[in-house]
Amino acid sequence: MTTHNLTEEMQGEYHYTVGPYADPVLEIEPGDTVEVETHDAFEGAIETEDDLPSEVLGDYLNPQNGPIYVEGAEPGDAIAITIESIEPRGPQPRGTTCTVPYFGGLSATDRTAMLHDPLPEIVKKLEVTTDGTVWNDDITIPYEPFIGTISTSPEINSVDALTPFKHGGNMDLPDVCPGNTIYLPVEVEGGYVYLGDCHAAQGDGEVCVSAIETPTEITARLTVRPDLDVPAPQFETAGPFTPSGRDEPAYATTGVRDDLMDAASDAVSAMLDRLVARYDLSRPEAYVLCSVAADLKINEVVDAPNWVVSAYLADSLFPDE
Amino acid sequence: MTTHNLTEEMQGEYHYTVGPYADPVLEIEPGDTVEVETHDAFEGAIETEDDLPSEVLGDYLNPQNGPIYVEGAEPGDAIAITIESIEPRGPQPRGTTCTVPYFGGLSATDRTAMLHDPLPEIVKKLEVTTDGTVWNDDITIPYEPFIGTISTSPEINSVDALTPFKHGGNMDLPDVCPGNTIYLPVEVEGGYVYLGDCHAAQGDGEVCVSAIETPTEITARLTVRPDLDVPAPQFETAGPFTPSGRDEPAYATTGVRDDLMDAASDAVSAMLDRLVARYDLSRPEAYVLCSVAADLKINEVVDAPNWVVSAYLADSLFPDE
Amino acid sequence: MTTHNLTEEMQGEYHYTVGPYADPVLEIEPGDTVEVETHDAFEGAIETEDDLPSEVLGDYLNPQNGPIYVEGAEPGDAIAITIESIEPRGPQPRGTTCTVPYFGGLSATDRTAMLHDPLPEIVKKLEVTTDGTVWNDDITIPYEPFIGTISTSPEINSVDALTPFKHGGNMDLPDVCPGNTIYLPVEVEGGYVYLGDCHAAQGDGEVCVSAIETPTEITARLTVRPDLDVPAPQFETAGPFTPSGRDEPAYATTGVRDDLMDAASDAVSAMLDRLVARYDLSRPEAYVLCSVAADLKINEVVDAPNWVVSAYLADSLFPDE
Amino acid sequence: MTTHNLTEEMQGEYHYTVGPYADPVLEIEPGDTVEVETHDAFEGAIETEDDLPSEVLGDYLNPQNGPIYVEGAEPGDAIAITIESIEPRGPQPRGTTCTVPYFGGLSATDRTAMLHDPLPEIVKKLEVTTDGTVWNDDITIPYEPFIGTISTSPEINSVDALTPFKHGGNMDLPDVCPGNTIYLPVEVEGGYVYLGDCHAAQGDGEVCVSAIETPTEITARLTVRPDLDVPAPQFETAGPFTPSGRDEPAYATTGVRDDLMDAASDAVSAMLDRLVARYDLSRPEAYVLCSVAADLKINEVVDAPNWVVSAYLADSLFPDE
Repeated sequence: MTTHNLTEEMQGEYHYTVGPYADPVLEIEPGDTVEVETHDAFEGAIETEDDLPSEVLGDYLNPQNGPIYVEGAEPGDAIAITIESIEPRGPQPRGTTCTVPYFGGLSATDRTAMLHDPLPEIVKKLEVTTDGTVWNDDITIPYEPFIGTISTSPEINSVDALTPFKHGGNMDLPDVCPGNTIYLPVEVEGGYVYLGDCHAAQGDGEVCVSAIETPTEITARLTVRPDLDVPAPQFETAGPFTPSGRDEPAYATTGVRDDLMDAASDAVSAMLDRLVARYDLSRPEAYVLCSVAADLKINEVVDAPNWVVSAYLADSLFPDE
Repeated sequence: MTTHNLTEEMQGEYHYTVGPYADPVLEIEPGDTVEVETHDAFEGAIETEDDLPSEVLGDYLNPQNGPIYVEGAEPGDAIAITIESIEPRGPQPRGTTCTVPYFGGLSATDRTAMLHDPLPEIVKKLEVTTDGTVWNDDITIPYEPFIGTISTSPEINSVDALTPFKHGGNMDLPDVCPGNTIYLPVEVEGGYVYLGDCHAAQGDGEVCVSAIETPTEITARLTVRPDLDVPAPQFETAGPFTPSGRDEPAYATTGVRDDLMDAASDAVSAMLDRLVARYDLSRPEAYVLCSVAADLKINEVVDAPNWVVSAYLADSLFPDE
Repeated sequence: MTTHNLTEEMQGEYHYTVGPYADPVLEIEPGDTVEVETHDAFEGAIETEDDLPSEVLGDYLNPQNGPIYVEGAEPGDAIAITIESIEPRGPQPRGTTCTVPYFGGLSATDRTAMLHDPLPEIVKKLEVTTDGTVWNDDITIPYEPFIGTISTSPEINSVDALTPFKHGGNMDLPDVCPGNTIYLPVEVEGGYVYLGDCHAAQGDGEVCVSAIETPTEITARLTVRPDLDVPAPQFETAGPFTPSGRDEPAYATTGVRDDLMDAASDAVSAMLDRLVARYDLSRPEAYVLCSVAADLKINEVVDAPNWVVSAYLADSLFPDE
Repeated sequence: MTTHNLTEEMQGEYHYTVGPYADPVLEIEPGDTVEVETHDAFEGAIETEDDLPSEVLGDYLNPQNGPIYVEGAEPGDAIAITIESIEPRGPQPRGTTCTVPYFGGLSATDRTAMLHDPLPEIVKKLEVTTDGTVWNDDITIPYEPFIGTISTSPEINSVDALTPFKHGGNMDLPDVCPGNTIYLPVEVEGGYVYLGDCHAAQGDGEVCVSAIETPTEITARLTVRPDLDVPAPQFETAGPFTPSGRDEPAYATTGVRDDLMDAASDAVSAMLDRLVARYDLSRPEAYVLCSVAADLKINEVVDAPNWVVSAYLADSLFPDE
């Protein structure tokens, strides 16, 4: 088991499209660990609260590290990524949260044409430490870091780094955090893992389009799972996670679609596949069981054109396992 | 403070449409408590696992108790309903969960026309007690009861009891449970509260269209809040509720719309109104704060044409309050 | 065959909700003709170009004449309404077109919550005659009148007059014009026909939320069709209607749903039912035939929460009929 | 002005992804004409009515000719393509129309997960000539050919050939037919034009997912329009096109989005831009004018994840032009 460094310098050019057309920056063995220096989603362009996104951002956003080639990963396999730690890096204030014109859940966007002027821009630069982020005298946001964008590569298409899709991408899924493991489908040899865009904190939904965006160093371990065929990302979370108070581990499936209902359907459908495969349940019974016991969350509603919904089922439901 | 009984007998005819055209069955003072005998959503028509929904269900579903007239409730007020207890009633097995042809999240429906045959029907009759519901030898579902349908009346329209809408209705929102308080907007004098359709357990989403449907006796206390103007239901929940593990009370706003994205927007928008009104935050700053700290859940995706999304914000975010 | 007048005076109170709870203003025999004096959708409140909608409009819009009770109409039948003429009435300028704050296709609305200020209001008052409407020195809009809102009543619910639904309502469908016949499903005895809201001209879509709104006198003949079971409005149009230039009569089915895709599916599905019932086609073949020969138009995208899509099939496709 | 042949042999490998990563097969001057031999969308794999799509189709569909490099085309320009003729080619029966499992408007799809079995497959092989296509003894479909898929290239992403997007692609837009001109936005030097997938006939909507798919030879002339900045495809059509019977030329704008409402908004928004730029109209007035005079059609609802809506405005509205 080797640990590989992927510093800014080694990465060189970061990527804004996720596909099979870039050369791998790293080739690793299954079980190896990577330490990756990520930029924030704005590639550091917002340095002060006077740097308005409309003025300082370039044509492309969300720079990605990678691709990382994982030996032995074949189409049809899954790559498992266990996040060990996410440390903030860079000079303070290294956290950025802001609105961006014509982005966000409560704004007209370039995909929902309207005649309104853009909303006023607001930028907050914040000191991020592992103790949390002081918002103002009254409010401190706990440090709950995760990887905002992580994916394997499609087979022949190449997808914008701002877009979540069936291989992962800009999912902004808070469960991709230290201690948890995410499974991504492999479609090209070696998987071609891209990652970046870490957040010091974010609510499920990321409703205004930015979290506390932060440059970081990620430590993660990658393995290959030939036995696992996932139609879209799935993950194990240490919990707690539900409104009903089960402070326990859970397994979750995701749906990544351009309509939240379709995303919910995909997530549930993948959970049914899992229940039927692992437990002695017919598909209709698994369906009804999900209705009474699985919980749906919206993880992200702002990374057009796709949104992320996850279905969670507590491990405690199966006490004998 | 009086306690009013609303037995099956006193209710007489249950209602399948929610509007101002029915006569109140009860007139109460603010602060009074009601004890209400509810039917299950199928009005008891599914008695055994051989009773297929396609054969035994009538034209109308989801019978409602009420309307209850609350003295002093005026248009523009909110009615606050604190649920004290929900007890299962009736002979065992009193719990019913099933699929219904052309209903549910993974089925063609009468609102999403397709050429597929209906899915096979499955009915499970379950013994429901306050100790939980035994699903099979391996799985027991905890007893986590809530009121599935609860609303005030629109001003001049009358809405199907199967539909959630801005005054509440068939929200299938698991947080409407003992210990919590829900706030509903008032649009007619006296509010005209309708309620029914209790569930012994349900995941957020209710993905196949039924929960563990159970006849119950609800005990709840109703008050009038002239100071509170809510555009759609809001609630206080004792928690825990979030994926990030804050086992604490929270305040939540809902969006009830025919598109999950619009529902999410409504929920967030209502939360911004609350933050701006209560805390020293501008609207843009409240928007960004929700992006980093509020969580979106899908409470229900099967009660066409409207779905329910809630935005939750932990009380602990404001430690000085 | 009798002709019945329904003047403003005879109508008395106009209706803003469409349901079974109002008393009929007219009882007629099948085959009778009605002459109906309609208000414009703003009930005449916008008298000059200085009357801003935000200032002069009341709580309710879109006043309806009716309900008209048609003897012999039973649940399961259709009522056929053949429009004979639509004449503008009232003092000039009697045409009104305008934007309304938080309504319209390119605006945030009260159902798609955003943080934008409302769009600027614009009001145009126009002289409407049967020769057309002069927009400015360069542009004259032909007089192509139709009934914007027309419906039967739901069984127990009561629906806002601003909403199109399966019984018709505010469909803003330009094909409901002189010479054409529309079929509406009956759900209560007598059908309870409501109508109003005529337009001197409108594009399919009605994208800003208003057409050339005009008070009129409608002459229409109503018959009962016990042989026709329509799930939503259908109509015969004298044509022309298609992009491919067939200037001929056509039959059309509609879908009225809160999602344009579901509306399109409903329209196509109803067309399949018709093709299977009338011609020697299997359902899959009818489906494929619609794919190569039926045309979809969006008739209305602004009358939230429902939109109208129609599927048109030229009569000439079946030359032997 | 040169005419360039692009035969099957010269094309060699056809493309299933549209992007900047393939080498041009042809470099032409603006004003040149191309003659292109296209495959049908199934690349000829469906030869008889016994060839079920589920059995004979490969992993990739919709083979594209190109890319064609147009000298002088720069990002920000438009490329204008005037279709001169589309001739069917290949042995009879060369027309194919069919259903494909988990594709189509009235079917569960791989993007709208459901639990239904796939619909039964139906394949029709049809003799296609310029006289039309005989469907059965009663029905003949007129020959109204058009190019189903036509696009320029995105800058850094690469898009599946089955997907319509802002540069065109699989729009299945019947107006891309002989006599009409389509304008596509340029994002890379030379434009990189891809095209293929011709249809002998199709209704607007293409509701079952296939038209009369036919191999053809296209003759088209390409020019560069540095003066024209189009956000998505636009076109001039010789008409007729509207339900109101104006048998005249029209200009149309398109919206290509994953939601039909967003597509409609984009189409209207682009039309407003055009009206404001060319005529003496304010934006609000152009908006209202579109509401009373522009028509919305759904051109395609089956090429997931994006749909196409066009807004048409008759040239006759501006008689002085």
